[in-house]
Amino acid sequence: MSKKQKQFRPKARVPRGLRDERGGPIAAQKRMLDTIGKVYERYGFEPLETSGLEYADAIGKFLPDQDRPNEGVFSFQDDDEQWLSLRYDLTAPLARFVAENYDGLPKPFRRYQWGPVWRNEKPGPGRFRQFLQCDADTVGSPSMAADAELIALMAEVMEELGIGRGDYVVRVNNRKVLDGVLETIGLTPADPTFERQRLTVLRAIDKLDRLGPAGVELLLGKGRKDESGDFTDGAGLQPDQIEKVMAFVTAGDGDRKTVCEKMRGAVGTSETGQAGIEELILIDQLLTALDIGADRAVFDPAVVRGLGYYTGPVFEVELTFEAENEEGEVTRFGSVGSGGRYDGLVKMFKGIEVPATGCSFGVSRLFAALQHLGKIEEAAAAGPVVVLVMDQERLVDYQSMVKELREAGVRSELYLGGSGMRAQMKYADKRNAPVVVIEGEDERANGTVTIKDLILGEKMSSEITDNEEWRSGQAAQIEAPRNELVVQVQTVLARYEGEPS
Amino acid sequence: MSKKQKQFRPKARVPRGLRDERGGPIAAQKRMLDTIGKVYERYGFEPLETSGLEYADAIGKFLPDQDRPNEGVFSFQDDDEQWLSLRYDLTAPLARFVAENYDGLPKPFRRYQWGPVWRNEKPGPGRFRQFLQCDADTVGSPSMAADAELIALMAEVMEELGIGRGDYVVRVNNRKVLDGVLETIGLTPADPTFERQRLTVLRAIDKLDRLGPAGVELLLGKGRKDESGDFTDGAGLQPDQIEKVMAFVTAGDGDRKTVCEKMRGAVGTSETGQAGIEELILIDQLLTALDIGADRAVFDPAVVRGLGYYTGPVFEVELTFEAENEEGEVTRFGSVGSGGRYDGLVKMFKGIEVPATGCSFGVSRLFAALQHLGKIEEAAAAGPVVVLVMDQERLVDYQSMVKELREAGVRSELYLGGSGMRAQMKYADKRNAPVVVIEGEDERANGTVTIKDLILGEKMSSEITDNEEWRSGQAAQIEAPRNELVVQVQTVLARYEGEPS
Repeated sequence: MSKKQKQFRPKARVPRGLRDERGGPIAAQKRMLDTIGKVYERYGFEPLETSGLEYADAIGKFLPDQDRPNEGVFSFQDDDEQWLSLRYDLTAPLARFVAENYDGLPKPFRRYQWGPVWRNEKPGPGRFRQFLQCDADTVGSPSMAADAELIALMAEVMEELGIGRGDYVVRVNNRKVLDGVLETIGLTPADPTFERQRLTVLRAIDKLDRLGPAGVELLLGKGRKDESGDFTDGAGLQPDQIEKVMAFVTAGDGDRKTVCEKMRGAVGTSETGQAGIEELILIDQLLTALDIGADRAVFDPAVVRGLGYYTGPVFEVELTFEAENEEGEVTRFGSVGSGGRYDGLVKMFKGIEVPATGCSFGVSRLFAALQHLGKIEEAAAAGPVVVLVMDQERLVDYQSMVKELREAGVRSELYLGGSGMRAQMKYADKRNAPVVVIEGEDERANGTVTIKDLILGEKMSSEITDNEEWRSGQAAQIEAPRNELVVQVQTVLARYEGEPS
Repeated sequence: MSKKQKQFRPKARVPRGLRDERGGPIAAQKRMLDTIGKVYERYGFEPLETSGLEYADAIGKFLPDQDRPNEGVFSFQDDDEQWLSLRYDLTAPLARFVAENYDGLPKPFRRYQWGPVWRNEKPGPGRFRQFLQCDADTVGSPSMAADAELIALMAEVMEELGIGRGDYVVRVNNRKVLDGVLETIGLTPADPTFERQRLTVLRAIDKLDRLGPAGVELLLGKGRKDESGDFTDGAGLQPDQIEKVMAFVTAGDGDRKTVCEKMRGAVGTSETGQAGIEELILIDQLLTALDIGADRAVFDPAVVRGLGYYTGPVFEVELTFEAENEEGEVTRFGSVGSGGRYDGLVKMFKGIEVPATGCSFGVSRLFAALQHLGKIEEAAAAGPVVVLVMDQERLVDYQSMVKELREAGVRSELYLGGSGMRAQMKYADKRNAPVVVIEGEDERANGTVTIKDLILGEKMSSEITDNEEWRSGQAAQIEAPRNELVVQVQTVLARYEGEPS
């Protein structure tokens, strides 16, 4: 082996926690994003695009430090020795954009955006280091109408995507109410002494759905051993404190007004808590005006959504139906989108109060849910018509056929490999081609082309007995005059229009 | 100031060489990408998506080294201490994908992809560190039909985008022919001794368009001083070598067959060069079968396209019309897309020959060209209908109006700020709202709403004299019964449907 040939050969592999996607699902996901975008547009949001990179100090709490520059986000230095980070969500870049362009923007500024975000985290099943988010936010409005509208928007997105009422619900809570409850048990939010304990309480509440009331009670108290034997430390609350928190957490039954009244009891005299209740009461009225009844949005004291970020209403849209996963286990999809009010974020840059609220859909999870529901249809005739090359010398003639088909709007291509008939048919099969066009020596002598209907061919060969195979092959193909190529192909394709594969 | 308030406040700024985009242009660019995607689909290409990150060793020559890990690409280490890079184009990730999934893919594999790519380069005017590419490639085909088809595809994309024949041309060359010319003057491509000189010659040829024959001659010889006084070293060729190269470079006049014959003279007995000529002759025949005449694709010996990457046909689509830039200077847009055959790339991973060819559009430049040509239309009624809030106590009623409008498919929103009438009208103006809806005390008493046509209002106020201003204001608004809100708003909007702003 000469020196030149011994060159380094990199291993071709997609990086850990990242993925490639091919073919039909991409087109279907694009249609889904288009549908969401149309709803956002109808609600008056305008599109915004920011780049994937931000200065590291501009994306919030994840300031890179010399020891662990990549904590949570991917960060690196450019040639100017400036730290850049890949955005980990679309909200921090929005805050940066608004702060930078504040004077020229309409206020409130209402934008939607979709695009990839990156997380420098340990990947797992269904957990990737790059994924798509699709957000709508209103920046510069303290009005509960902005929050109520986002709740309505999330419900409307679900229905436009074909998820019917009863199969989803938007759960709504208010961080001020949660703060009020913490205040009544002595963990005053303004007092930094209790910060860790408060976070442990919020994390425990957040787990009601998964662990049930008994599990949450343990986590509010001394702690809980899970099925694997791992022990999670609890918040160390006293029995009377636990009782108050549990009374609040389990106040979620009933219509929105009833839940508000039960919550009011749990926040006692806390001003923050009472203000939160008033906000929820207004949201209830606005939702009613928007025709969002209890079948579409409920108040749920156990919704927490992230820690230390949200400042008012929080909400999440949950899919409530059950589905079988690939292992045949019955699972629920759970939350496919969420949002809430974050009045403190833009202030970080501007130093002035710029209240904001927004929502975000996790695109992959939502898409997986739609697939399970059978709402994602791929057409039977999804592949291109393939014109086979029976004689490389006559490439130009075959190319002309493709041209005629394309001019008539038929998705089609010339077989571009160098292999024989058998490999070409295999290729057409892999491409999900509905039709192949063949012009061999005989056809050429007759002035005809053979048009094979591969969908019908497959159907027939699976239905008939072996010794009829030859006939089935014949029935699924026609020999047509060369000058009828386009119309005959179109006739075959018309059989499968709109039909799912 | 307390300690807590003295916290670090990051400066809000978009990173150098990156940009934010807002509103109408995003939607228009999306339509443009959709149009290109439809042509790619019609040609039988299937969509592929890869992530923005690749293992650094998988994206070719830009292997990060410890001294300059960011040369050309943005690279960093993840928690596993693996080097990751942001993709700098869509071709290297395609090669990685094909090598990784080779056995399961149809061969040839024909895919299209669009998405952002990143360059760690010095930004400049119109030169960004993140930009969109939109590619189509056929991997696994040595056939010239694959190359010819891409040339036809680029022409068809231009026309589908509204750029007429005569306003664009695809220029085609072949690197084998260029290699043949180098061989005839003694710079044998297989000999590494001449590598630098060869590159200097190719760079010089590439500048024919900009510098003219005299400039290229200087660069082939001793070198050239430009207008600013900077001197560029030349390739140092002898007069007889220069003469041969110039004879080749200026052989571009005439139809494709004529150019082939002139090129044939320039490559002499070089086998590589002759093989390149044969490829071009076949491409000419295929293009003719595809109805791509000389008005759409020409052979041009001065097309080089990148160095050391392409191995066969190369092509670029150039916009030939002139346009005025913002400073009133007449400019040409030049190349908006390019491509060529790169038979060596997948081999880097697989060790086996996997011939490939592809094309790529520079999305921003193409979009800028379409804007200049007036092919990008933004609807006059692009903004949302804004329902003003005349009384915060009655938010719920205003919200209902918005709901009714949205249910009828009218893009609309509630004013979500806290300001008065004047600021609300200014907001509506900034949002490009076609209509505002007002229900003040009087309207409420009358059971009516006032519907203001802002487009007509602006038109009238610019046309009439000052003392008629009041009347114009009245003519552009109507007072309608509350229960006719939706239909009256729709009537106003119908005036501007399809009308550009």
